[in-house]
Amino acid sequence: MTFAATVLTLYPEMFPGPLGISLAGRALGEGTWSLDARNIREFATDKHSTVDSTPAGGGAGMVLRADVLAAAIDSVPVGRPILAMTPRGAPLTQARVRALADGPGVTILCGRFEGFDERIFDGRAVEEVSIGDYILSGGEMGALVLLDACIRLLPGVMGAAYSGVDESFEGGLLEYPQYTRPVEWEGRTIPEVLRSGDHARIAAWRKQMAETDTRLRRPDLWERHIGARVQSPSGARQKKDE
Amino acid sequence: MTFAATVLTLYPEMFPGPLGISLAGRALGEGTWSLDARNIREFATDKHSTVDSTPAGGGAGMVLRADVLAAAIDSVPVGRPILAMTPRGAPLTQARVRALADGPGVTILCGRFEGFDERIFDGRAVEEVSIGDYILSGGEMGALVLLDACIRLLPGVMGAAYSGVDESFEGGLLEYPQYTRPVEWEGRTIPEVLRSGDHARIAAWRKQMAETDTRLRRPDLWERHIGARVQSPSGARQKKDE
Repeated sequence: MTFAATVLTLYPEMFPGPLGISLAGRALGEGTWSLDARNIREFATDKHSTVDSTPAGGGAGMVLRADVLAAAIDSVPVGRPILAMTPRGAPLTQARVRALADGPGVTILCGRFEGFDERIFDGRAVEEVSIGDYILSGGEMGALVLLDACIRLLPGVMGAAYSGVDESFEGGLLEYPQYTRPVEWEGRTIPEVLRSGDHARIAAWRKQMAETDTRLRRPDLWERHIGARVQSPSGARQKKDE
Repeated sequence: MTFAATVLTLYPEMFPGPLGISLAGRALGEGTWSLDARNIREFATDKHSTVDSTPAGGGAGMVLRADVLAAAIDSVPVGRPILAMTPRGAPLTQARVRALADGPGVTILCGRFEGFDERIFDGRAVEEVSIGDYILSGGEMGALVLLDACIRLLPGVMGAAYSGVDESFEGGLLEYPQYTRPVEWEGRTIPEVLRSGDHARIAAWRKQMAETDTRLRRPDLWERHIGARVQSPSGARQKKDE
């Protein structure tokens, strides 16, 4: 089944962009996913193709009109989540990415300027999503990121050898550090345990490094990880998530 | 002064991509920033142009070699921060974006497969940066996001009318909701206060909405915001950040 992505944007020429290259580009060519980038401007109703207006209550910038956005959304087949990329949204997580990739596809609304008229979110059941705590020039970069994260999880895209279970966030931890040849580089050597051939020791070292690095680098993730283990005494639910 | 961006990647054809369009594209044309996308493969030393090898200690995927990455980094003029896009990195924040945009530019290392040989980070003072808690097919999307966030802050890019002070994260809060015409859409009206013309009331409402939305949507940001106010009794430092 094809994962169907529709992007509603003022810059459809930004798509597929980097998603037309490498893994995602090959998958697009093979029909693993489809892309339909529509220009919001086509849904304006006046002769000037107006899509935005000044903020109610004053202030700089322009706000995208709810009526124009609704017409754009209503042009897309129903049955897929409708997301809007905005810094006010729920932070994107790997769990959300997996849920989206398991579904039929996604419709993504990209804003510019001062964003969207707030009424569109309730009016069309639009879910606000943020890719991070920084400001971009528009939602298009966010849409590219979200689609890239989903596409690599679609069946066949990463190849059979790739399980993804050791990746950062999949078990609530950062991934362990990686090394490869040469064994010595500028006086720095690969940790001895990784050259030992002792698979149990290697697995134990990697687990410990993943835990230590998460605790030191991302105390927020670590606390959530510990909390999840405490709430799941049998470990069963946690194991399933991993 | 031109903000100089160098991207070290296996997919230089992904650049400028979406950064060649709209605001960032215009700024690139005007010389506000420059872009140099170099293929890491050019820095391989064997006849097969090998850039990666299997992970020490076993496991799926391939790891980018430290010696090849170092040669690529050493080809770039010194004096700029060197960042690597990786999920193990420090989460990107708007404060970090502002600091980068105020500097001479940035060199960005993009990984693929299982990432980088860990020794490169110490070996070349590379700072690991993450754009969010999800996994992408490579660092290229992260580089596009980071550059877009920086470029819009460069002098002249957003236009004189644009201050950015009301944006999400700038004061440690999400931005307030926005509305624009029509006043009534599908039975939903713009909040009365925004139509009152009373600038003091509007400012008070927006402040309250920014605080309420941050508290409800992003308790993590809210706690940090409250903590910053407590640690700064005079309010002077906090005011300056806003």
